[in-house]
Amino acid sequence: MPTYKAPVRDTRFVLEEVLELGRYAALPGFGDLTPELVNSILEEGARFTEEVLQPLNQTGDRVGCTRHADHTVSTPPGFKQAYQQFVEAGWGGLSGDPAYGGQGLPHVISTAFEEYLIASNMAFSMYPGLTLGAIAAITAVGSEDQKALYLPPMVAGRWTGTMNLTESHCGTDLGLLRTRAEPAGDGSYRLTGTKIFISAGEHDLAENIIHLVLARIPGSPESVKGISLFIVPKFLVNADGSLGARNGVSCGAIEEKMGIHGNATCVMNYEGATGYLVGERDKGLRAMFIMMNAARLGVGLQGLAISEVATQNAAAYARERLQGRALGGPKNPGGPADPIIVHPDVRRMLMTARAFNEGARALALWGALQVDLAHLAPTPEARQDADDLIGLLTPVIKAWFTDQGYLNATNAQQCFGGHGYVRDWGMEQFVRDARIAMVYEGTNGVQALDLVGRKLAANGGRGLRLFMREVGAGIEDARKNATTPQAAETLGCALADLQAATNWLMRNAMTRPEHAGAASTPYLCLMALVAMGHLWLRMLVLAEHALAQGESEFHANKRITAHYFFRHALPETAVHRARVEVGAEPLMALAAEAF
Amino acid sequence: MPTYKAPVRDTRFVLEEVLELGRYAALPGFGDLTPELVNSILEEGARFTEEVLQPLNQTGDRVGCTRHADHTVSTPPGFKQAYQQFVEAGWGGLSGDPAYGGQGLPHVISTAFEEYLIASNMAFSMYPGLTLGAIAAITAVGSEDQKALYLPPMVAGRWTGTMNLTESHCGTDLGLLRTRAEPAGDGSYRLTGTKIFISAGEHDLAENIIHLVLARIPGSPESVKGISLFIVPKFLVNADGSLGARNGVSCGAIEEKMGIHGNATCVMNYEGATGYLVGERDKGLRAMFIMMNAARLGVGLQGLAISEVATQNAAAYARERLQGRALGGPKNPGGPADPIIVHPDVRRMLMTARAFNEGARALALWGALQVDLAHLAPTPEARQDADDLIGLLTPVIKAWFTDQGYLNATNAQQCFGGHGYVRDWGMEQFVRDARIAMVYEGTNGVQALDLVGRKLAANGGRGLRLFMREVGAGIEDARKNATTPQAAETLGCALADLQAATNWLMRNAMTRPEHAGAASTPYLCLMALVAMGHLWLRMLVLAEHALAQGESEFHANKRITAHYFFRHALPETAVHRARVEVGAEPLMALAAEAF
Repeated sequence: MPTYKAPVRDTRFVLEEVLELGRYAALPGFGDLTPELVNSILEEGARFTEEVLQPLNQTGDRVGCTRHADHTVSTPPGFKQAYQQFVEAGWGGLSGDPAYGGQGLPHVISTAFEEYLIASNMAFSMYPGLTLGAIAAITAVGSEDQKALYLPPMVAGRWTGTMNLTESHCGTDLGLLRTRAEPAGDGSYRLTGTKIFISAGEHDLAENIIHLVLARIPGSPESVKGISLFIVPKFLVNADGSLGARNGVSCGAIEEKMGIHGNATCVMNYEGATGYLVGERDKGLRAMFIMMNAARLGVGLQGLAISEVATQNAAAYARERLQGRALGGPKNPGGPADPIIVHPDVRRMLMTARAFNEGARALALWGALQVDLAHLAPTPEARQDADDLIGLLTPVIKAWFTDQGYLNATNAQQCFGGHGYVRDWGMEQFVRDARIAMVYEGTNGVQALDLVGRKLAANGGRGLRLFMREVGAGIEDARKNATTPQAAETLGCALADLQAATNWLMRNAMTRPEHAGAASTPYLCLMALVAMGHLWLRMLVLAEHALAQGESEFHANKRITAHYFFRHALPETAVHRARVEVGAEPLMALAAEAF
Repeated sequence: MPTYKAPVRDTRFVLEEVLELGRYAALPGFGDLTPELVNSILEEGARFTEEVLQPLNQTGDRVGCTRHADHTVSTPPGFKQAYQQFVEAGWGGLSGDPAYGGQGLPHVISTAFEEYLIASNMAFSMYPGLTLGAIAAITAVGSEDQKALYLPPMVAGRWTGTMNLTESHCGTDLGLLRTRAEPAGDGSYRLTGTKIFISAGEHDLAENIIHLVLARIPGSPESVKGISLFIVPKFLVNADGSLGARNGVSCGAIEEKMGIHGNATCVMNYEGATGYLVGERDKGLRAMFIMMNAARLGVGLQGLAISEVATQNAAAYARERLQGRALGGPKNPGGPADPIIVHPDVRRMLMTARAFNEGARALALWGALQVDLAHLAPTPEARQDADDLIGLLTPVIKAWFTDQGYLNATNAQQCFGGHGYVRDWGMEQFVRDARIAMVYEGTNGVQALDLVGRKLAANGGRGLRLFMREVGAGIEDARKNATTPQAAETLGCALADLQAATNWLMRNAMTRPEHAGAASTPYLCLMALVAMGHLWLRMLVLAEHALAQGESEFHANKRITAHYFFRHALPETAVHRARVEVGAEPLMALAAEAF
């Protein structure tokens, strides 16, 4: 059975040394964040996820969710009790608004915890995860009355939330959606239609479920410009917050899917369900994107979290599994064979994942800090900078983390040989669970298009210029550090590749938009590697400094992993650049019928 | 539900134009192989796999195999009837020795059919597939009596075969195995032990199952030098070939695994089972490797086959799924949206798979032809050359094809968005099925080590030199073809990368064997790309020639796909070379305990 140990030491390194949270003590929510407090939150989060949630992960996969004849849904054994503990400990409201009962901690802290939450039990984590997205949307565009009515129990976790976008014939292209919202005459609406792939759509964990639903009001344009967002509670909510009648929304089926069996992915039937418009009519898509952007960072975190837990188990197995001998002669001469970790190719898989995990953790927490700063930084310029940076990197984090998470889970499974393919060891579950993250909240191809088609050019390319400037400044800083010149040079080459690919796009994408589409995925990979390299260079400089003050195993290992990243992973940028510069022709030349 | 159309036209192109089978008419088995005969075999194979086997693939996954209280195993619905048809049509004996009832066709022809067989139903294909491996081992090292007794019903398909190597504590390192074979005094042995992961270990398809089992005879060395190979029939066989008593071997359990549910992967208990030594005592591993090498090519074919069928379904979906609009303006203005095949990034996934599928098909059939030539070529030199080439490329085909097959299946699933993650569309099954091929018959890491640790240096590097010479000659030939200079130059660069990586290994691996281990996977990728490039360059030249004689859609599409390969896939060789030349240090620097 797989195990999990939350990487608290590494999280602390990122928060304290890389991001230097102490610098932000003047900002709301950051003031009390002493290293001791952060540590106690992380340690408590580690204990809860390791001891309560992780042991439920494998049964969650095997038993899955069950839909009953009355359309109610049971979650897997133990989930209900665990969720109760989750709520009582206040984990769902870590960064919630204190006005609605949240703890008001920075997003960067709740993100650190969320990694542990997902790694221990991804299917479980989605119940509170979707709630956070729904809270974000109501917070952003809901009326004061709606906030007062819905947010307190959602922040507390007594109610959960969902996002209802997809219909069978429309996923990416929401303009095609058919769910209708008829005005009821009393200010509310009656929603009718069928939504599919609704995560946490129905379950037995919470007293109520607040569905956020995209639908079209009669008379609105038949395009993305005619979509409105509605609150549709499972149980109607009285003015005093108590629960009223059961609403006309129910779970029509649970999807049979490849993984995340512990989460109920539902077909949701709306049959004249009462709904309340949130935000402006026909502006639903914009509101949904607020939710979606937060959700995309959360999905990126899923890639990291599964990669981390899968790698931990593979490393443990590689240290213990005796098989064959080291190429240079026995390393365990007293035993029947050497542990397979003596083999460079096994280490290649583990080091690749390790370099990703540590780099991605730094990048994810850096990103979460930008979310905080976009709201809290003292000057409008600083808020704008943070918003630009996280806007640019959201699709990168979502797509790159989930692609790599899947590959690392696959490699971790590979370390087990045939034992990885059978259920007992739990490794194949990680692969099946990780797979969905490349798809939902916009496929990774859609992320890449968001990057090159929207984010690059946003505000005249302001975000991209800022990002490149920051990476360049990091390189300059590292160059002064005599011990890391090679790594700085390598990142310099990668940055030059990014610059060249960007220039190519600027010169060519206007004349033929397909060039942007063709370039999108390689360009995203290139930017992801540069972003990871930026964080890794910073971590290498910090490790060098710490080592100069005296040996520390943690920092020595950090340096080793940094060098692996710069020598093995980063040189890939040249291939991605070349693929950008090839242009659309090789992709578009074949007639559609010839495929 | 997924569909499958066997790529007969493309197979014919490889056999007739690329490999020019007509050149070998003087060899046994090749004489009658007119294009018409080959076509009728392929068309018949296509019909059988498309109509009989493919419709059973999804239920095979859902229902799986069932072990009963009496330790017998039922295969999924329809498998038994389909296997009966398979036997009656003689598909199992296509390239079987006519002396034992086979049809004596070249291996290259049966390989072409096997691709269809696997693509239509991988789990089903493994029952006859394992039989071919067992036939190969008995043919190579069995006594004349053994051949006469066992081969005819196996070639006919009335009996199937298995390979029993793995035990719970030993997979790659067979020296550790514990299964014992005690001499019974009558020339036979009594085998006792437990084998795991035995594909097709028990089922209801055949009258008898011939297990080939590795075990140690008391007194033999406790290492790989003390392993012998035994025939252990499920039912003992009387001298006249009739079935005798049930032997002491039975299925202890069916493994619960990620995929290939239609194949019974068994724990096999040997409890004093009667076995017969095959080949020499203590030389079992050598005999098993004969079987294994044939099996590795078959596993490589699994990567290609799943990639092909998954891509076909993704392409069909991409042509039909209406969602969003083309970047350059509507392509289907009359419809509610454009088909997603208008998007360059969807095409990127499809073209990557297509370039792999067509290149891999050519390489697989070229490899199968080498197997034929290694036995049948008129001169000892020509036989030696063919044997050297296929020996060198067997690990490359096994590992590269299965890694890419998995990635292409994953990309094909990705084209379906959320629909790819649910069971109904069948795409996630392709991914789960494809995953095992990277593991069994030696993990892909073991293949890479086989390549750099054994095959490169075999016979003083004779095979590698021959391979490089052939690639170089292909480049020279293409250079004369004025229309393909760019592709020839690209392959020239890739070949130079391979040469440089080889030189680096020769200079460094002797002083530190870990350099070879560290280089193994990138080196294998590099060689795979060069081998694919070699076949693609040949195909491009042929396409250019054909086009010069007048337009042909098939050849025009081949040229487009070739250019995609040379511009998108092949430039990766530089990264693989760089990773070889980095050496072992970045991988070995971290202490084992630090992982």
